[in-house]
Amino acid sequence: MQSYEQSLRQTQQFLLDHDDYLVVSHIQPDGDAVSSTLAVGWLLSCLGKKYTMLNEGPIPTRMKYLWKAEEIADMSVNPPERTFSHVICVDCADFQRVGQTQRYFDPNALIVNIDHHPTNNGYGTVQLIKPDAAATAEILFDLLKQFDIHWDADIATAIYTGLLTDTGGFRYANTSPKVMEIASELLSLGVNGPELAETLLEEMTLPQLKILSRALEGLQLTPEGDIAWVSITPQDMVDCGAANEDLEGIVNYPRNIQGVEVGILFKVIHDQAVKASFRSAGKVDVAALAQIFGGGGHTRAAGAKLDLPLDQAVSLVLKEVKRVL
Amino acid sequence: MQSYEQSLRQTQQFLLDHDDYLVVSHIQPDGDAVSSTLAVGWLLSCLGKKYTMLNEGPIPTRMKYLWKAEEIADMSVNPPERTFSHVICVDCADFQRVGQTQRYFDPNALIVNIDHHPTNNGYGTVQLIKPDAAATAEILFDLLKQFDIHWDADIATAIYTGLLTDTGGFRYANTSPKVMEIASELLSLGVNGPELAETLLEEMTLPQLKILSRALEGLQLTPEGDIAWVSITPQDMVDCGAANEDLEGIVNYPRNIQGVEVGILFKVIHDQAVKASFRSAGKVDVAALAQIFGGGGHTRAAGAKLDLPLDQAVSLVLKEVKRVL
Ligand SMILES: [Mn+2]
Ligand SMILES: [Mn+2]
Repeated sequence: MQSYEQSLRQTQQFLLDHDDYLVVSHIQPDGDAVSSTLAVGWLLSCLGKKYTMLNEGPIPTRMKYLWKAEEIADMSVNPPERTFSHVICVDCADFQRVGQTQRYFDPNALIVNIDHHPTNNGYGTVQLIKPDAAATAEILFDLLKQFDIHWDADIATAIYTGLLTDTGGFRYANTSPKVMEIASELLSLGVNGPELAETLLEEMTLPQLKILSRALEGLQLTPEGDIAWVSITPQDMVDCGAANEDLEGIVNYPRNIQGVEVGILFKVIHDQAVKASFRSAGKVDVAALAQIFGGGGHTRAAGAKLDLPLDQAVSLVLKEVKRVL
Repeated sequence: MQSYEQSLRQTQQFLLDHDDYLVVSHIQPDGDAVSSTLAVGWLLSCLGKKYTMLNEGPIPTRMKYLWKAEEIADMSVNPPERTFSHVICVDCADFQRVGQTQRYFDPNALIVNIDHHPTNNGYGTVQLIKPDAAATAEILFDLLKQFDIHWDADIATAIYTGLLTDTGGFRYANTSPKVMEIASELLSLGVNGPELAETLLEEMTLPQLKILSRALEGLQLTPEGDIAWVSITPQDMVDCGAANEDLEGIVNYPRNIQGVEVGILFKVIHDQAVKASFRSAGKVDVAALAQIFGGGGHTRAAGAKLDLPLDQAVSLVLKEVKRVL
């Protein structure tokens, strides 16, 4: 297998050797998909090449500030009038992720596969894959560095956007020293980091916001203010149109209250079963707490299932948390 | 006036010249105050010096994971038994910010003033002040670099904590290229960035959470889902024990809903006056919108006061937003 550096040079050569490229990314594009599409487009425009940027659907409004974001054609509105023999796929772990845009690939099209997903299956003629990159935008940073071109705030903003969104605002475990080093360089090129963070990082769906609101309505605290909890019933889920993944992050709200040591979310499964999620502010080991009820987890984030009605589950859990505190 | 480099060397000399130091920071210490106190303590311990770390009150639980955080004496619990002739004040814009800890300064104590607040009034014998530093921890990074010492994950975690909290998780305008460069180096020393971010960045007071919950209960959207708004009455403020600063950030919740272009917070001032805060997802220039009502602001964040009852203010504002959309 060739090294990352060899893949970078091979990709560089591919971009120099031809003239007319189609650049695509995955369906329902996220920040990294849009950024990476634009970064390739920006590079090709610097090289004086012809290129067409395409996606199966529209680009999210929140990313319209990006350089030429409006030039990424929405296939359902502005389909290309021809097919392409040279295609660059970015941020797609497998070929099917490009969606219907593949209709515009020649049957024998040469495809470059640029991606950071560890699950990437290696489709395409040229593979530029780095599984420990935080974002495809990080790989494009390296690729663009191969060329002798003048960097400006447009390209810096595009790459910063991919890093920012795929690291959850420099908060996920993929936030490597290299990510921060690149971010530093991009900020010095004039990226407005605060504005990007505010616009891109805090999006929620309506069901997510509704179920959060419903949970917070029922917020309760101990008189000492050291334990806070919320509960969610099956009826709440129906009322808010919420799915289980919409509950992610809710348990942090009770935990994040000043003075609270343990925050808990009680999710009623049915009349006789409750799932309890625990979050610690640091003092209490909630993994040990969860183990009391046959559950488990980490010291600051753990959970357990109790075969009890909600009110009994709450009393029992509170009694144990108070004992630990 | 001497240069920053001269101040660094002067501070270095001060730390080498004496043996027994008191290290203090401001009352109600934040992440930067605690980090900076510990970073000075860590340096002095490397130099084999005697030192005492002190604060007027307790260290927040959330920061107890930091190296020797429990050794920062809470004056109200463990007051020092003597006074000190060499004092290092960190993150204090003026002398009064040290609070009651000044009781333990000798009347003729030599004081080093290490701080990043632009308002710092230059108290003390030695001043190490850098107003464009994002945090006092950033200045301590530079100071520690003057010494030939081995950096470990403990000191890296302390300094990272100060940067993280004073930049709001690398989101405020003070997030300079240098901040990200330092963060990169600290991560490579073994800092657990994700855990720090989760624990330190999302704290809220109970009134803040209550007024957020109250606002979200009344969330409304247009049938098209492109405008979302919440409103808060004086009675809500009383019920939740909330002050005006507790409303900060609430208007982002309606704006952050997927598909929403404009989010609005209507704050009722009295029967005939409403303050409207506007946030844009990118498409609408809300500064122009606010100007229609005699207000102003930026393209993505603006506000205006309307001398109308709430229901009339809402109708009028919605009519104008719809016209723009
Ligand atoms: Mn990605
Ligand atoms: Mn500070």
